[in-house]
Amino acid sequence: MKQSHLFTKARKQSPKGEVSKNAQLLIRAGFVHKEMAGVFSYLPLGLRVLEKINNIIREEMNMIGGQEVYLSAMQDSSSWKKTDRWDEKENDVWFKTRLRNGNDVGLGWTHEEPLTSIVSQHINSYKDLPRYIYQIQTKFRNEVRAKSGIMRGREFLMKDLYSFSRSQEEHDSFYEQVKKAYTKIFKRLGIGKETFVTFASGGAFSKYSHEFQTISEAGEDTIYVDEKKKIAINKEVLNKEVLSQLGLNKKNLVEKKAIEVGNIFNLGTKYSEPLGLDFIDDGDKKVTTIMGSYGIGPTRVMGTIAEVYADDNGLVWPESVAPFSVHLVSLCADKKDIKEADKLYKTLLDAGIEVLYDDRQGVRAGEKFAESDLIGIPKRIVISSKTIKEGKLEIKERRKQKPTFVPVKKVLSAL
Amino acid sequence: MKQSHLFTKARKQSPKGEVSKNAQLLIRAGFVHKEMAGVFSYLPLGLRVLEKINNIIREEMNMIGGQEVYLSAMQDSSSWKKTDRWDEKENDVWFKTRLRNGNDVGLGWTHEEPLTSIVSQHINSYKDLPRYIYQIQTKFRNEVRAKSGIMRGREFLMKDLYSFSRSQEEHDSFYEQVKKAYTKIFKRLGIGKETFVTFASGGAFSKYSHEFQTISEAGEDTIYVDEKKKIAINKEVLNKEVLSQLGLNKKNLVEKKAIEVGNIFNLGTKYSEPLGLDFIDDGDKKVTTIMGSYGIGPTRVMGTIAEVYADDNGLVWPESVAPFSVHLVSLCADKKDIKEADKLYKTLLDAGIEVLYDDRQGVRAGEKFAESDLIGIPKRIVISSKTIKEGKLEIKERRKQKPTFVPVKKVLSAL
Repeated sequence: MKQSHLFTKARKQSPKGEVSKNAQLLIRAGFVHKEMAGVFSYLPLGLRVLEKINNIIREEMNMIGGQEVYLSAMQDSSSWKKTDRWDEKENDVWFKTRLRNGNDVGLGWTHEEPLTSIVSQHINSYKDLPRYIYQIQTKFRNEVRAKSGIMRGREFLMKDLYSFSRSQEEHDSFYEQVKKAYTKIFKRLGIGKETFVTFASGGAFSKYSHEFQTISEAGEDTIYVDEKKKIAINKEVLNKEVLSQLGLNKKNLVEKKAIEVGNIFNLGTKYSEPLGLDFIDDGDKKVTTIMGSYGIGPTRVMGTIAEVYADDNGLVWPESVAPFSVHLVSLCADKKDIKEADKLYKTLLDAGIEVLYDDRQGVRAGEKFAESDLIGIPKRIVISSKTIKEGKLEIKERRKQKPTFVPVKKVLSAL
Repeated sequence: MKQSHLFTKARKQSPKGEVSKNAQLLIRAGFVHKEMAGVFSYLPLGLRVLEKINNIIREEMNMIGGQEVYLSAMQDSSSWKKTDRWDEKENDVWFKTRLRNGNDVGLGWTHEEPLTSIVSQHINSYKDLPRYIYQIQTKFRNEVRAKSGIMRGREFLMKDLYSFSRSQEEHDSFYEQVKKAYTKIFKRLGIGKETFVTFASGGAFSKYSHEFQTISEAGEDTIYVDEKKKIAINKEVLNKEVLSQLGLNKKNLVEKKAIEVGNIFNLGTKYSEPLGLDFIDDGDKKVTTIMGSYGIGPTRVMGTIAEVYADDNGLVWPESVAPFSVHLVSLCADKKDIKEADKLYKTLLDAGIEVLYDDRQGVRAGEKFAESDLIGIPKRIVISSKTIKEGKLEIKERRKQKPTFVPVKKVLSAL
């Protein structure tokens, strides 16, 4: 994409009143727009990152047998009343609105109730199970404080997977599969090293749930990490009994701030029981389905990557989620040189490389470099009358200090 | 995808209280679930259709220089107050909700105001224009009557493109480009023949707007079609003056019911003026940007295709938007035959064909065929012990009555 064509512009100043690093940088670089606290719009560069995150998650969900759906945001009260989660006294994160006939409707902040109701219309026999169903969809939560930029939204994107199993064993086996898939996802997203499977409180149906926590000073959670064993415990469940159960020694644990990028829960029959999701087993007996839920917030992941990798000069995207792979910065001013730069852009595109081409005229080199650092594309190629004369291009990785110089003909193999 | 794995099941009966043909069939075939009137969830088959529709639209939007964004559903009141569209007395389609601090927020039913505000932060000079920005995003409208299934939603998907131009000429030229792109889109979506560019009322900045109306008895609009000239007039603007302006003769017009699948508007400075979207032109003068808006409802298009093509046996999808290209229906019961069917499934997948494979055991042939007709995949291949013995496969197009018989080895070239 030509940068002269992109409608957003980078800004030098942080927006007023924005305290989180991720939102400051993402707004300055033109990735997002803040509609209000906790509510963001995704602009072309930001949407490209988000779609790449979504697609990595989608691929891994499909790989473990997930079927994708897209449920409505607007929610009828009936199924939520059956599980006692409709009343705002029980769940103060509801946003509700009203139809013109006077009926209240809710805006989905999670989807256990509606999905369980839908699934119950399609499941009769043990032959219809297990089933794994997910969506990547907008959630609404009436957060009091939404000060963590795109990491804690009133409106945000969520991948929510739900499993429907015939027995606890079948459930447990899938739960472990998701744990592995999540580990793979965070690795592919570029935050594998910083992300720890974390034991957290479980609920009625199991002692623990599992969170995926990414170490960051911007995190709202406190966890205790055993770096050798690559596991962690959420502060909320840390006690002697838990330590001994998990075979951990308090001396080996380091306290860290962390961001919860994913979580997986054993729901047991908490929703399937009141919503009547049962099936006839192979002995002709009626049995209640065992459920699990598995979340990852793509918008939160995007904010987390920004927090974890940004440096003093701006954003730093891992290759797998970068809006473009290469930022081709042209300092060419005369016609002949511009033609060379255009040719190089075409060569890169023809090789299937995603390129943001800074073809803007009348912008100083220093400003172009500063904006390029702020946007944070993994590799920068500089082309100028000087590099053209010398027959070499300057290639610099965003994470590194020094550029390398590569003959024009070898640029593709160097990337 | 194996049908034994798909979580939805086809139903024989229409859901109670549903009056529209599109929703009846889409619910029966397991494409959608009705959460409440005008609010639908998209299940695996339905989401596949919707994504194909979205991608065709997206490709054509990118082709004419569109940049994709994804704006928030939650809307701060400020920009809407500047254009006098916040008050529910002015716009009774608003759904509003409330933050815990007491502030009212709206749920976007369109996005002129927020996008114009965002763009005004990035545009200064004539060099920054023109810009064409679009999204495919969920809209919320508080409809009193939502009886047309997925064609008129309280919550629905919309592709909304907005253009920002420096002059009326520049605007007009892009407007014509969109008209052509839309014609191409509806052709690719399989409803080109039934869809007419229709003159409709314009507003303050031009005499006409243009609707894209698809002929269907389920339509809520009445249009007058000149079939030779391939244009139409919306009933609301039909009068002598308009007929003479457009060079049409009332005798050649046929009255038809039609569904508005797209519309394009010249917005002039209606939003750019109150929201201060101006730029400095090449003579150093401040000029207000000229805007246009261009909508297509992907969910409405899906409903329209269902209405237009369905027959007595169920849905009939055009190849371009079908959830799968081939429905491989296996009537095989013994191991050796099942192995042959599995092999054929693999052959088709390896050839890059999207296949729904009805591998279910214990379902009668008649039931399989009825469900296959209901789902409406363009081509059906039947494999059974009989076809295996004869070395031939039965291939039937959904739109046709009679099957053809093709030697197994020639199946790929026959598709």
